Amino acid sequence: MIVAAALPGIPEVRAGVDLAELLVEAAGMLADGDVLVVAHKIVSKAEGRTVALDDVEPGERAVELAAEHGKDARLVEVILRESSAIVRSRPGVLICRTPHGFVCANAGVDASNAGATDELVLLPIDPDASARALRARLRALTGVAPAIVIADSFGRAWRVGQCDVAIGIAGLAPVDDWRGRPDGAGRPLQATMIAVADAAAAAADLTRSKDSREPAVLVRGLERHVTDGDGPGAAALVRAREEDLFL
Amino acid sequence: MIVAAALPGIPEVRAGVDLAELLVEAAGMLADGDVLVVAHKIVSKAEGRTVALDDVEPGERAVELAAEHGKDARLVEVILRESSAIVRSRPGVLICRTPHGFVCANAGVDASNAGATDELVLLPIDPDASARALRARLRALTGVAPAIVIADSFGRAWRVGQCDVAIGIAGLAPVDDWRGRPDGAGRPLQATMIAVADAAAAAADLTRSKDSREPAVLVRGLERHVTDGDGPGAAALVRAREEDLFL
Repeated sequence: MIVAAALPGIPEVRAGVDLAELLVEAAGMLADGDVLVVAHKIVSKAEGRTVALDDVEPGERAVELAAEHGKDARLVEVILRESSAIVRSRPGVLICRTPHGFVCANAGVDASNAGATDELVLLPIDPDASARALRARLRALTGVAPAIVIADSFGRAWRVGQCDVAIGIAGLAPVDDWRGRPDGAGRPLQATMIAVADAAAAAADLTRSKDSREPAVLVRGLERHVTDGDGPGAAALVRAREEDLFL
Repeated sequence: MIVAAALPGIPEVRAGVDLAELLVEAAGMLADGDVLVVAHKIVSKAEGRTVALDDVEPGERAVELAAEHGKDARLVEVILRESSAIVRSRPGVLICRTPHGFVCANAGVDASNAGATDELVLLPIDPDASARALRARLRALTGVAPAIVIADSFGRAWRVGQCDVAIGIAGLAPVDDWRGRPDGAGRPLQATMIAVADAAAAAADLTRSKDSREPAVLVRGLERHVTDGDGPGAAALVRAREEDLFL
């Protein structure tokens, strides 16, 4: 059984805040085996990964692309800075690959829920490191180390709508790898790798509404996927460039 | 809060079985607002959507592709029959578009957990119709009509591993559409459409292990997305061909 519940009462997060303290206060009792799914926005804000739109000087390419796409050239400039490649584009849509290897709209640059109207929230520079640091700080504060999943809403190829996925992980198996293990009928499964951390992110997102300001969700029931060590992180969920058929 | 629990004690499903009866027996008390996530395999089996490998006569194209991909030519023949297009292929991997518009490996044709070793399980012909029929039968049996999500595990572009997604839906909003509605800071959200039914499928999958033979999961806490009418179904989750950048 899985139980997921949004944590109440997390205040607006500013740069430099101790996120672990806010989470402990909101969560109350935490236990080993718990998973905390945290919206990347509060992690990015705590880390100062925001940009004031007014401070951005768009370059030539940004100005061109912005005209083509009907977007603010300063926003496009920031998207370009946060991208290692533009994977696809068409009017109004920029699908980017980030330096982490994530493929998502606008390189994860987000204006919504950013606090001030003219502020953009970027992805953390190293979301796995952010997750590990948050877990270590929780362990220091409470003596227990819940797994951390940092989540963002990504669109998908072929399917309408967004699903939350894990962009940073500490202490949760990114995948449950069944390759070579027997199924219920005893036959070896050939390609089965369940993206546990992505599923946890998606499950967490179901607990809240987009206007609810509940950026953290406690998920219980995933103990069998929670590990003592921090593990390979969400980096293990990025398909290698040379194996990807859709770049 | 979301609670997801696998239903115990569902026996091996054969063609013609009354799936709704099995679900009612396993679930006990059902309530309006409940969501039942059902693995497509038991739906397909109940509908007789299986093929005995020995009965398949592979055509020329299947023989060629099978040699190229190191697969059984009879399996490839069935995959081709179940595909409207091969979207990408490389040794060992066939990414197909199905007549429903789903993009997935092997057109969803599956040999694992199929019962007999030489039996392939296909996707239901019309999974939304299957979901609606199951819901109607549950309503007839119990007087309440939980929402139905028929789920399958699909791989994703760019990311490692599979996540369960909704391939058939009755009575659950496929997406929670926030476009134009205000976020927590009062600004209109531009592109936010949460793929609720896919997230529910992913959450349900977390409750079980791949060898556990628990093909149905009861999800509670999604009442706000459950509808009286059956709604547009998973067809609404298929991005239109002409809008898709990755076909």
